[in-house]
Amino acid sequence: MINKKELIREVNDIFIGPLVLTSGKRLEHVSLRYEHIGPADAPVILVCHALTGNHLTVGTENEPGWWSGLIGDGKDIDTEKFQIITFNVLGGCDGSTGPTTMNPLTKRSYQASFPNITVRDMVHAQHQALKQLKIDKIHAVIGGSLGGMQALEWGLMYPEQIERLILLATTPYLSDYGIAFNHIAETAIKQDPNWNNGFYDEKTMIPGLEIARMVGMVTYRSPQLFAERFNRKKVEDMFEVTSYLNYQGKKLRKRFDANSYLRLLHAMNNHDIGKDRKGIKNACKSLAIPVLALSYDKDLIYEPRLIKGLVHQLPKATHHHIQTKFGHDGFLVEFEKWGHLLKQFLEQK
Amino acid sequence: MINKKELIREVNDIFIGPLVLTSGKRLEHVSLRYEHIGPADAPVILVCHALTGNHLTVGTENEPGWWSGLIGDGKDIDTEKFQIITFNVLGGCDGSTGPTTMNPLTKRSYQASFPNITVRDMVHAQHQALKQLKIDKIHAVIGGSLGGMQALEWGLMYPEQIERLILLATTPYLSDYGIAFNHIAETAIKQDPNWNNGFYDEKTMIPGLEIARMVGMVTYRSPQLFAERFNRKKVEDMFEVTSYLNYQGKKLRKRFDANSYLRLLHAMNNHDIGKDRKGIKNACKSLAIPVLALSYDKDLIYEPRLIKGLVHQLPKATHHHIQTKFGHDGFLVEFEKWGHLLKQFLEQK
Repeated sequence: MINKKELIREVNDIFIGPLVLTSGKRLEHVSLRYEHIGPADAPVILVCHALTGNHLTVGTENEPGWWSGLIGDGKDIDTEKFQIITFNVLGGCDGSTGPTTMNPLTKRSYQASFPNITVRDMVHAQHQALKQLKIDKIHAVIGGSLGGMQALEWGLMYPEQIERLILLATTPYLSDYGIAFNHIAETAIKQDPNWNNGFYDEKTMIPGLEIARMVGMVTYRSPQLFAERFNRKKVEDMFEVTSYLNYQGKKLRKRFDANSYLRLLHAMNNHDIGKDRKGIKNACKSLAIPVLALSYDKDLIYEPRLIKGLVHQLPKATHHHIQTKFGHDGFLVEFEKWGHLLKQFLEQK
Repeated sequence: MINKKELIREVNDIFIGPLVLTSGKRLEHVSLRYEHIGPADAPVILVCHALTGNHLTVGTENEPGWWSGLIGDGKDIDTEKFQIITFNVLGGCDGSTGPTTMNPLTKRSYQASFPNITVRDMVHAQHQALKQLKIDKIHAVIGGSLGGMQALEWGLMYPEQIERLILLATTPYLSDYGIAFNHIAETAIKQDPNWNNGFYDEKTMIPGLEIARMVGMVTYRSPQLFAERFNRKKVEDMFEVTSYLNYQGKKLRKRFDANSYLRLLHAMNNHDIGKDRKGIKNACKSLAIPVLALSYDKDLIYEPRLIKGLVHQLPKATHHHIQTKFGHDGFLVEFEKWGHLLKQFLEQK
């Protein structure tokens, strides 16, 4: 029995048994890795991470998580007032069941045999995991980008368990422009000579994944930011911006699995809250909880006009457009600009 | 002797001898392929083509050129009033000296041994070619994108020979954001298993070039255009936008040389009218001929703000911003929106 006053700080795996996917396929043995931080008697905030994120949202002092600037003791999302749970997504490669984990039927890692999954499958898995953790009431679900897609689906799939939603730099469906850039990334991975139809030696590097990452690094930021940061500077006859992209590409290649990357792109491409719900307008009607939605200026792929359009159709939603040079990556930086909006929304009675 | 009333319509090669490049390197035997159309006694308009364009600007009735909607008998640029010359650029792969042509010193095609060239080298070669053709007065130089970079350099390098400039969807220097996308394209080509450091079997396809083309096809257009055109439609579980990109990639791969593509990207990356001219501001002072500059809405790489900034510094320049969903590719379509501005500018006394 957990002591209600206990301060939780754990990274753990939760086994949720078999999972039937939206496609009808079945994964036999599913577990999700998660980070859980905060007072055991405090309201629960569920964080959903983006494409290359993971469950290490808050992290530790020595190894701060990817959102440690926003979430922590005394921060905008206050870990003295809330407990924070983040799962590594289903299909990911940071501990949850995905292409790199063992298929119990073959005793070998899934690799390319891992089925395609949807954002709804990710959310379904998280829902099962929270049930195992005996958490049935969620104060808020919050996510940016792919994390925002999950948050939206949470609101639509399990509205009775959620009090509010925070959607950052996300969209009711991925645009064709977004699908196009994802296709460039996917093609780069699949044309890689080491790719071997997804059954590559797991020690082998997939340089095509570097190109995929570069596509992300450029489209998640803005021309203005690049101009200020690089200003056409060269080092040894090489533009600095190209060294930067090479570095970022290699960095991701070392920590991320190519099959996993493709599964997550596929989930993003097929994200559409209106699918099998008689369209977006109809889906929106059932999303009656309070929603706070932020869009970020110069976001190329998750176009602000789409989230504005969504908010317009939701019964209880507020929208803010954040001025920034960061574009899509705005949800990962400059918390001083918009963190207070989250604080206010989370703490209002 | 050409009859002054003669109607010229030819596609031909002009040999210009050796050419010393900006880098100091020397190309021994340079020739440029060109299209020349119009009345022999009419003022000459020089057209400069973009990255994947060529000299076939006007074309014929059966095989219309890439700008046949803008240029022709009775069109906005009227081939009854002007003679039009377009050269395939130095370094290109449609007949002019470039990586696919024979190196006279080795009797084999240059391939990757073809030197890096600059936009100024392209313009220098065209200038030599016009001298051979006994054309020393140019009514106007016009170009879009990489063609606009050439037009700008024409105005700065040979102002005494040119009466006016038309700059479309171009920029005084390529932005870091543009260099970043070019780097993705370049990396895709160079990671291709068939690449072989640029000394590939010329019958071999370079699938990496398909990815390079996809990067172009997406960044030259806008999210809005993609949304209208594709609307997330699928054919056999594949998003139409991805089939479209595959098709465009393969189409270019069949007609374009990968080494040539890299040389042109390199020239674009290094384009900067201020280089070796004590900065852009100083360069602008010497560009005293009338300039008409058009920027296109939603142009991601050739940002309208950069051309606006340039025009502001030029003594005799006019700028129009064209509203369009096409983004950068705006200069290749919707002539009814902006062609009259060119007509007026070209025909004014």
